[in-house]
Amino acid sequence: MSDFFQVIADRAAFDQTAATKADLARGAALFAGLNCFEAGQSQTIHTHGGADKFYLVMSGKARMTVGEETRVAEAGTFVWAPAGVPHGVAEALERTVMLVALAPPPAVRSGG
Amino acid sequence: MSDFFQVIADRAAFDQTAATKADLARGAALFAGLNCFEAGQSQTIHTHGGADKFYLVMSGKARMTVGEETRVAEAGTFVWAPAGVPHGVAEALERTVMLVALAPPPAVRSGG
Repeated sequence: MSDFFQVIADRAAFDQTAATKADLARGAALFAGLNCFEAGQSQTIHTHGGADKFYLVMSGKARMTVGEETRVAEAGTFVWAPAGVPHGVAEALERTVMLVALAPPPAVRSGG
Repeated sequence: MSDFFQVIADRAAFDQTAATKADLARGAALFAGLNCFEAGQSQTIHTHGGADKFYLVMSGKARMTVGEETRVAEAGTFVWAPAGVPHGVAEALERTVMLVALAPPPAVRSGG
């Protein structure tokens, strides 16, 4: 639509070989992007040392881990992964789209 | 559900007299919250001098402004309001829930 207004569903893209990432917006203090998974795809547990992050599940369903917690997150679930806390996507149980916000932004294109 | 996993719909709350705000998470670098509107409610155009922000419309529909652009944003629309660019909600056209992310976080509870 424009740089200010974007329809998430129009920006989602999938790859049978691996989860994909797309940038939505990048400012000096805040990055937003999409992580898109086919069923069965995953994101390794990782930690952002100095950055706070959240995921918002837009569609689909995935088993996700933050710290010691693992839950199945469906559309409309907000997942908070503060700086220093390991997090990841154990497995997408369906085709799944997540918005990701990261502050401060990653130094290079990463999608979080 | 927990501090790490929250269902947005469970956190939304409405007030017939004014739009409401709720905190979802606050880190050193990133704040996330909800802005909830009944039909007809609004949020005055305002600017965050040093903070990047986005809205994500979770449900409902609202006429929103960023910079020189005004559009009707429905569920699934991402609205980017970078530092220094005026933005606001001219009018919620239905009961509307928006997730808001703000980095760096506001000094006091504000919900963006």
